[in-house]
Amino acid sequence: MGANFRSDNVAGIDPAILEAVARANAGPSLPYGNDAVTQRVEQRLAEVFETDVAVFPVATGTAANALCLAAAVPSWGAVYCHAESHILLDECNAPEFYTGGARLVPLAGAQGRLAPESLAATLAAAPTGVHHAQPAAVSITQLSESGTAYKPDHVAAIGQICRERCLVLHMDGSRFANALAGLNCSPADLTWRAGVDLLSFGATKNGAIAAEAIVVFRKDLAASLAYRRKRAGHLFSKMRFLSAQLEAYLDQDRWLDNARHANAQAKRLARGLGALSGVTVTQPVDGNEVFAEMPTRLVAAIEAEGFALEPWAPATGDKRLMRLVAAFDTDPKDVEALIAAANRRQAA
Amino acid sequence: MGANFRSDNVAGIDPAILEAVARANAGPSLPYGNDAVTQRVEQRLAEVFETDVAVFPVATGTAANALCLAAAVPSWGAVYCHAESHILLDECNAPEFYTGGARLVPLAGAQGRLAPESLAATLAAAPTGVHHAQPAAVSITQLSESGTAYKPDHVAAIGQICRERCLVLHMDGSRFANALAGLNCSPADLTWRAGVDLLSFGATKNGAIAAEAIVVFRKDLAASLAYRRKRAGHLFSKMRFLSAQLEAYLDQDRWLDNARHANAQAKRLARGLGALSGVTVTQPVDGNEVFAEMPTRLVAAIEAEGFALEPWAPATGDKRLMRLVAAFDTDPKDVEALIAAANRRQAA
Amino acid sequence: MGANFRSDNVAGIDPAILEAVARANAGPSLPYGNDAVTQRVEQRLAEVFETDVAVFPVATGTAANALCLAAAVPSWGAVYCHAESHILLDECNAPEFYTGGARLVPLAGAQGRLAPESLAATLAAAPTGVHHAQPAAVSITQLSESGTAYKPDHVAAIGQICRERCLVLHMDGSRFANALAGLNCSPADLTWRAGVDLLSFGATKNGAIAAEAIVVFRKDLAASLAYRRKRAGHLFSKMRFLSAQLEAYLDQDRWLDNARHANAQAKRLARGLGALSGVTVTQPVDGNEVFAEMPTRLVAAIEAEGFALEPWAPATGDKRLMRLVAAFDTDPKDVEALIAAANRRQAA
Amino acid sequence: MGANFRSDNVAGIDPAILEAVARANAGPSLPYGNDAVTQRVEQRLAEVFETDVAVFPVATGTAANALCLAAAVPSWGAVYCHAESHILLDECNAPEFYTGGARLVPLAGAQGRLAPESLAATLAAAPTGVHHAQPAAVSITQLSESGTAYKPDHVAAIGQICRERCLVLHMDGSRFANALAGLNCSPADLTWRAGVDLLSFGATKNGAIAAEAIVVFRKDLAASLAYRRKRAGHLFSKMRFLSAQLEAYLDQDRWLDNARHANAQAKRLARGLGALSGVTVTQPVDGNEVFAEMPTRLVAAIEAEGFALEPWAPATGDKRLMRLVAAFDTDPKDVEALIAAANRRQAA
Repeated sequence: MGANFRSDNVAGIDPAILEAVARANAGPSLPYGNDAVTQRVEQRLAEVFETDVAVFPVATGTAANALCLAAAVPSWGAVYCHAESHILLDECNAPEFYTGGARLVPLAGAQGRLAPESLAATLAAAPTGVHHAQPAAVSITQLSESGTAYKPDHVAAIGQICRERCLVLHMDGSRFANALAGLNCSPADLTWRAGVDLLSFGATKNGAIAAEAIVVFRKDLAASLAYRRKRAGHLFSKMRFLSAQLEAYLDQDRWLDNARHANAQAKRLARGLGALSGVTVTQPVDGNEVFAEMPTRLVAAIEAEGFALEPWAPATGDKRLMRLVAAFDTDPKDVEALIAAANRRQAA
Repeated sequence: MGANFRSDNVAGIDPAILEAVARANAGPSLPYGNDAVTQRVEQRLAEVFETDVAVFPVATGTAANALCLAAAVPSWGAVYCHAESHILLDECNAPEFYTGGARLVPLAGAQGRLAPESLAATLAAAPTGVHHAQPAAVSITQLSESGTAYKPDHVAAIGQICRERCLVLHMDGSRFANALAGLNCSPADLTWRAGVDLLSFGATKNGAIAAEAIVVFRKDLAASLAYRRKRAGHLFSKMRFLSAQLEAYLDQDRWLDNARHANAQAKRLARGLGALSGVTVTQPVDGNEVFAEMPTRLVAAIEAEGFALEPWAPATGDKRLMRLVAAFDTDPKDVEALIAAANRRQAA
Repeated sequence: MGANFRSDNVAGIDPAILEAVARANAGPSLPYGNDAVTQRVEQRLAEVFETDVAVFPVATGTAANALCLAAAVPSWGAVYCHAESHILLDECNAPEFYTGGARLVPLAGAQGRLAPESLAATLAAAPTGVHHAQPAAVSITQLSESGTAYKPDHVAAIGQICRERCLVLHMDGSRFANALAGLNCSPADLTWRAGVDLLSFGATKNGAIAAEAIVVFRKDLAASLAYRRKRAGHLFSKMRFLSAQLEAYLDQDRWLDNARHANAQAKRLARGLGALSGVTVTQPVDGNEVFAEMPTRLVAAIEAEGFALEPWAPATGDKRLMRLVAAFDTDPKDVEALIAAANRRQAA
Repeated sequence: MGANFRSDNVAGIDPAILEAVARANAGPSLPYGNDAVTQRVEQRLAEVFETDVAVFPVATGTAANALCLAAAVPSWGAVYCHAESHILLDECNAPEFYTGGARLVPLAGAQGRLAPESLAATLAAAPTGVHHAQPAAVSITQLSESGTAYKPDHVAAIGQICRERCLVLHMDGSRFANALAGLNCSPADLTWRAGVDLLSFGATKNGAIAAEAIVVFRKDLAASLAYRRKRAGHLFSKMRFLSAQLEAYLDQDRWLDNARHANAQAKRLARGLGALSGVTVTQPVDGNEVFAEMPTRLVAAIEAEGFALEPWAPATGDKRLMRLVAAFDTDPKDVEALIAAANRRQAA
């Protein structure tokens, strides 16, 4: 039986994180985040990001993103994002719900990344006046939907445009750890020093049960979030168990170690599959995702051996774009087994 | 050092529930509820309620309540509820947010319970026509905000009115187990057989980490909930860990055993405190909550010994209404210790 | 055949206002309020109120009220208002829609007016913290729903509380002219000098076709209104015809003359009806509305002669509370005829 | 001094419509649409469209469109529209506000019209499942944003796709009269017989003060509109003056006569300008709008003579795309004068 490479959300819980939850289960605790664990997580994230931050733990990435956008834009605002971004395509209008009806404006961009020039041109051409959605924010995804990372200078170029136009810059960091692990930079360089105002800091895909942290770098944007989180039903009464996940995640660089492991497996997958004739790895593998155009016959053959891959686009001719994602707990043997199966089948 | 009786949300996790989460952490799983555990939970709840149900696990009671109301009423609708109900007073306008602006109409009612006659009279006097919020739903809380239980015939009287007026009946069952454990009836008798259409079935306060189940008895009301949950960010990717909590909660009547334990401690508290001169237990103790009017000096003295009690209203004169809540893990020794302390201090 | 006293919204258009619309129909004009008439209206209202104001003409009172509240409060806010207020009872949840789900909190108050002491007490008892609707605004109606006027010192007492608690004070002035005409004070004294931040300045009921002006005294609250009005579909392309109504309304104190006429007819009605045995005028007649408890037989008899009256509450015994409203165009002969009919029938 | 060709919303009121408003100002009337005029308008529109319809008069096109969409789609729905459509670009997120956050999905299409093939392809590729905006409606504009008309078979091809996919078809008919006047078909053929479910029937641009009618062909979609209109503040108390505009508009084919006049002037403009060297009329002139690429020097010269034209895109090189719109009251002499001026300046 093979392994599941469809997404990192099929993975389980990092045992260290589960242990931390169990450890937090000792004696009563103040509810709703007024507990010591939650306060330590905020301090820890301030250290990680080398600046004062406001932190709001929530359980899902969609909640984190939608709450960030709601704090950032009025309901008559426009949020510029990549045409393939998760907030646009995969959150069932959550951003519109939370913002009271703001508009997501899709922009093209190579390798899943928003191009600063394209953003600047779009903003320059945006009509002014009361009839139109008002430019209000930019949201970028780290890793992008194509598995590529935004480098600090790329983020900074977008951040510079945002500052000039008084737009808020949000980063959907559901795979922030994977991006950071692959870049030689600090968390601060990749976020607030480059102009990021609000970060959805993901942990679920990288080993948590269900935990993300909204990290706010611009304090004025934090004021409404406590209310927004509560009235959305995302304030946990037994918050310490959510925060305990984040604490263990950040402890001793577990988040980065987990990400490094996943990234290494992705690179291994890319090397192995890319060496096959007829297979093209279509995007740089900056993190834990591999996008590969593969013969549909090969895909079927691999799946017949029990491996699960994610179809990423309809088949064109006898090829199909597939996504393979490695997780913190991906067994290198499963990676080798998949590559071996692919070689065996391709040779057949 | 004493114990915390402020709320059952200061309690921790039932070890059996935590073990179930750990057990679910074996191998990959389909995300977003397409897993075996989630399906088993739906089946189990169908058995518990002796009827077909649609089940939507979420992590908080506020989410469960707000999603139920959103499925039940249009944004120009009115939801009748007790003037002290949680949805009205303690959810930061979540019902309004999720319903797109429906109106909560507070009604008085003795012992925290909505009176059928008062509801009927209010509905009879409601003006018709397009200018007014349209009567659309009734929401009752089980246990009520005064710790009392609605008996099946009480629910049925309200359910009858709802059916006559085509209103949806929602039950906020954040302490449903505690209510049921104290009544000699079946889950079905207390819900759909009495006219309940939508139930927020609570588990968090009674031993889960963060798990509630929306239980839909009227299938037409279920159609929108999958979308509503997702766009609210309440669909968990690693859903199996949420469902595992519910499964363990329901397994071998753990939910009822936990509730019985909590209820017994509450009764013990009520007996002990009620025997003190100057202390009046103000509400029937139908579940795990005790409301007691106590001398403020006595409260201060007890708190000085490390016990935590919840002030439930501003002090009037030298008395104050306090709430004490027992949980699934309340240690009877702590109960005895509190009563002993109260006796000692009262005598001083 | 008799006359219709059910409401001032059954009245027609003041001929001078209709002429002004016709006059504005000369040659093309810039759309959407970028016309000279609209600018003159803003200036004129600044003179009337003796201060700088931002003005947003709209067509209905519900739009004016809901837009004002939306500019004033966040969606997790609470708006305190009288339990019988129009925004609460007669606008089909428009305030909730426009505010994104804010809460209207009904308060009792004699003669249809909010009592400062009751407001202060409610605010003092409001719980703090993220779980509750946050006190954000107060809305009062001028004339009140009982036809009474708030005097400047009454408004100022409420305004003082608002300032102390950082609440916005909104006045629903759908009958502002009638209130002002009956009080010996200036428009400024009755509004911003007494702490009013936002005014729905009504004209429709007092002679316009469909025209109200949002008048903003606190400039920071005006910033969002241009966008809010547009995205609600309340920005008229041919705005000059809306503004022309307001200009004519304000011209040469027409608004006050119209109101004085209506008020005088109401007083005449009150005197005439109040003199009848079995009839009690229940509220001070501060403007153009009369509330009278009348024998149901008398009501039926009067209506049989063709007069229309508004039932204001269900009948109790053989009496019923009726409302009679005089308008700018109420014919004194109709008033006399009604009184005569009542006397004749009562004597029968 | 020249004339204003920027838009048909710079035009005034058709005198016959103003007279109708004056005529309606005789005696009191039941408010809120319970008057005879409003009922006659509904009957008249049923005759015009040869079928039973529900009619909701409102004052602006944005209100009509946003209300229609709100009645058609859930807040997690997707509305497919042309990338240049008014609902997408010019209504400040009103559709999102009214629908509670539905998504507008822009599609390309030649000459401002949605191509059935492109719509079908987009729908075929739309992913299924709870994570995505759910295909729910299509909205087309008649005349399109490029001044072109959808012919009945074009609408029917779109209507067929909608029916197959259970999508609602909305037509933004802000220039419906202009489209119809240029096509040899009946109102029914252009709407419900071709699959249109909801129509925003425009009158403002074609001679009314501020009047549009929501015309509902699918009765089940009408049920919520009375409430939606009221809670949006778009229900007029003195409704008869809104309805009187519509009645006069429809009376004796005034609407079509007005449109024919405007269309004829547009054709005259197109012929005259199109004959100039360096000027290209870029779109078929199906109604009252002309889109012409013109030398910027020529534009400046014409404007220097007092004519107003609408720039429709940023200048590219020494050319710029301009829009010229004729209205019901456009004076043919002004058209000739503009053409003469253009010829004179071009020759200079």
